[in-house]
Formats: sequence, C-alpha cells, structure tokens
Amino acid sequence: MNELDEFTYISELFAIYGSLLTEKQQEIMENYFNFNLSLNELSEELGISRSAVGDAIEHSKEKLYKYEENLHLYKRNKDLVEEIEKLGISEEEKKKLIGVIYGI
Amino acid sequence: MNELDEFTYISELFAIYGSLLTEKQQEIMENYFNFNLSLNELSEELGISRSAVGDAIEHSKEKLYKYEENLHLYKRNKDLVEEIEKLGISEEEKKKLIGVIYGI
Repeated sequence: MNELDEFTYISELFAIYGSLLTEKQQEIMENYFNFNLSLNELSEELGISRSAVGDAIEHSKEKLYKYEENLHLYKRNKDLVEEIEKLGISEEEKKKLIGVIYGI
Repeated sequence: MNELDEFTYISELFAIYGSLLTEKQQEIMENYFNFNLSLNELSEELGISRSAVGDAIEHSKEKLYKYEENLHLYKRNKDLVEEIEKLGISEEEKKKLIGVIYGI
C-alpha cells in the first residue's frame, strides 16, 4: 500500500471505529486525517510535543487496525456494496441500502 | 426487556463483538451464553469462584453494551436485513447478502 492509499484507508477505518478511541485520540485523528493539520500545527494547537502527537497517532492507528482485524467491517461493508451494485434494483433502493450500511 | 430477551440480545452482541473481549472473557461468555453452563458449572470447570465468574460475565456484558452503543452494529444489521427483505430480488440473492452481513 502506498502512502496515499494508507492515508485513505486509515481515514476510512477512523470513520468506522473512531468512536472506540478516547476523546483525545479522536480529536488528534480528526485534525490529522480529516482536516489535514500537520504534526507541528497539532503540536502547537494542543500544547503537547510533536513526538507526543506522533505517538498518539501511531497508537490510534494500531487500535484501528486491531478493530478491523477482529471485526472486518471495512472489508464487509465493501463486499456488501459490491453485491448491492450487482442487484437488479433501482438506484434509489441501492442508495438507501448503502446509506444504512454506512449509517448515513 | 425480559430476562429471556436480554439473554438472546447479549448472545447476539457476543456473536458480533465477542472477538474484542479477552480470551478468558470469550471462554466464559461462550460457555455461559452458547452452551448454557451454569455459574456453578463454570466455576468448577475453570477453578475460580462463582462470584469471579459472575463478575467476568457482568464485565463482559458491559463491554458488549458499550461496543453496541458506539458502533450500533446489532441495530444496523437488523435494519439492513429488514430493507433487504423488502427488495424484489430472489431468495438466493437475499440469502447471499445476509450471509455477507453476518460474515457467514
């Protein structure tokens, strides 16, 4: 996986399992992965060292990978969407099902 | 929720989130909820006190409830199956989709 793919993958894991991280971890991950703040910016904003921010991100990533390893939701959601795309049903119905899958 | 409904509900949460419990918790929950062993039988089999078994079950239940509160997978799976049942597709296709949802 190249860096950009990994970045996207982690964002998606975060969208699924983010609520299982601590509040502080969620804050850091959201700013880093969704709002694209740099480690330096996050360090300044949170008043903690750059390396503490980096550690929090690494630790959060490990947790997200562990959740996926155990629950396989990222993979299962993708498989479901693939199966749904193949069905002979209306676009409206597909959209509705996919909305239920992703909780939107 | 009456006791039987709660028992069934916890079994279903365990089927979804069980892999996130510790190995010891999984062993106890499996024997209690899937194989219907009593607290006394579990206590004897594991060589720990009856109250330690009870505590482990309570603690595991709390974890399962917390996962559902955060990820809503039990509810989402039920909603998805309901939507799928309404679709004008073959029983074969329904069964396949439901298999993907429950990872079977």
